[in-house]
Amino acid sequence: MKATHPFNETIALMRRLPTFGNRSAQRVLLHLTENKKLLKEMISALHIIDENAQRCDICCNIDVENPCYICRDERRSDAIICIVQDVNALWAMEKAHAFKGKYHVLGGLLSAINNVTPASLPIEQLLHRIADKSVKEIIIGIGATLDGQVTSHYISNTISKNNQDIKISKIAFGIPMGGDLDYMDESTLKVALEMRTNITSV
Amino acid sequence: MKATHPFNETIALMRRLPTFGNRSAQRVLLHLTENKKLLKEMISALHIIDENAQRCDICCNIDVENPCYICRDERRSDAIICIVQDVNALWAMEKAHAFKGKYHVLGGLLSAINNVTPASLPIEQLLHRIADKSVKEIIIGIGATLDGQVTSHYISNTISKNNQDIKISKIAFGIPMGGDLDYMDESTLKVALEMRTNITSV
Repeated sequence: MKATHPFNETIALMRRLPTFGNRSAQRVLLHLTENKKLLKEMISALHIIDENAQRCDICCNIDVENPCYICRDERRSDAIICIVQDVNALWAMEKAHAFKGKYHVLGGLLSAINNVTPASLPIEQLLHRIADKSVKEIIIGIGATLDGQVTSHYISNTISKNNQDIKISKIAFGIPMGGDLDYMDESTLKVALEMRTNITSV
Repeated sequence: MKATHPFNETIALMRRLPTFGNRSAQRVLLHLTENKKLLKEMISALHIIDENAQRCDICCNIDVENPCYICRDERRSDAIICIVQDVNALWAMEKAHAFKGKYHVLGGLLSAINNVTPASLPIEQLLHRIADKSVKEIIIGIGATLDGQVTSHYISNTISKNNQDIKISKIAFGIPMGGDLDYMDESTLKVALEMRTNITSV
């Protein structure tokens, strides 16, 4: 018996989170137990997230309001949409301060192995967004993993089929092949946005 | 703006925890946001810890009951007490299943730099514990850092002054099991040589 029930249960929960191993879970739990003020603040912060966090109906970003703070931001252009894999990628992009359009968050990549089909990604929603012709350019901001490339290819094909007046581009591969956007430094992301190239129709 | 207020606030709280950087805090928060069931379970687990976790009046271990599960355990010997730096060390010891006595958790080490004096550690409490003469041995299970050695020295001196019938020992220092001599630092090698034990006939 390493500790009694509630501790073990909390450690088990923590281990279901990314980045946590057994030892880091123990350290975090003990730190919280010994700092009840921080623990209370953490509980109330997580409670606020639980109550308020929701997906944006427009772009699938996560925010405490709907539409999200990016879709509501009138200083950002509606004419250009950057498609990203997930909210981590969106946050990384925002940190680079290099993009002033809107986003579309896929929440995943097409994957035969993980049974992610086009229907499980918000691609219909994206087509609906661009149907009113106000969008002039779609930037595909997806990393160059295998699934990422398949997904980029599928999306650019699907869009160009019915929207030949929309420019479709992809971020430049200043990003190393096989890399994940979430792990890129800000200047690499910036350069990748600036070096985007047109996708010629397939 | 990376995300709106409640997210940034929660990430800032997480970064005050050990093992968390900005990226791991973001990843954990997004994972929780996208898994509301896990988030709710986490909130309620932390709430239980907040309500119930307390220091044991006997040994200063942390538990949801007082005295703690170790002090209450009648299968464990009261005659032998192992002094450890903190609850992390206690949990590590318990994981090894090698000790069947009781513990005394210091919650810190003597340190002139951090202004930790003997009065800020539960040493009076330890002397009170051994006053009834039921304790036969004190094992000092503190790591061999500078502060650790000062603390071990102070405690063994303080105990032996008034309790000459109590055996005081310290855990062995040397090469870790499975460790390669090539990778050990010089002081570990030195102590391993000095503390060598005779090999009785094979």
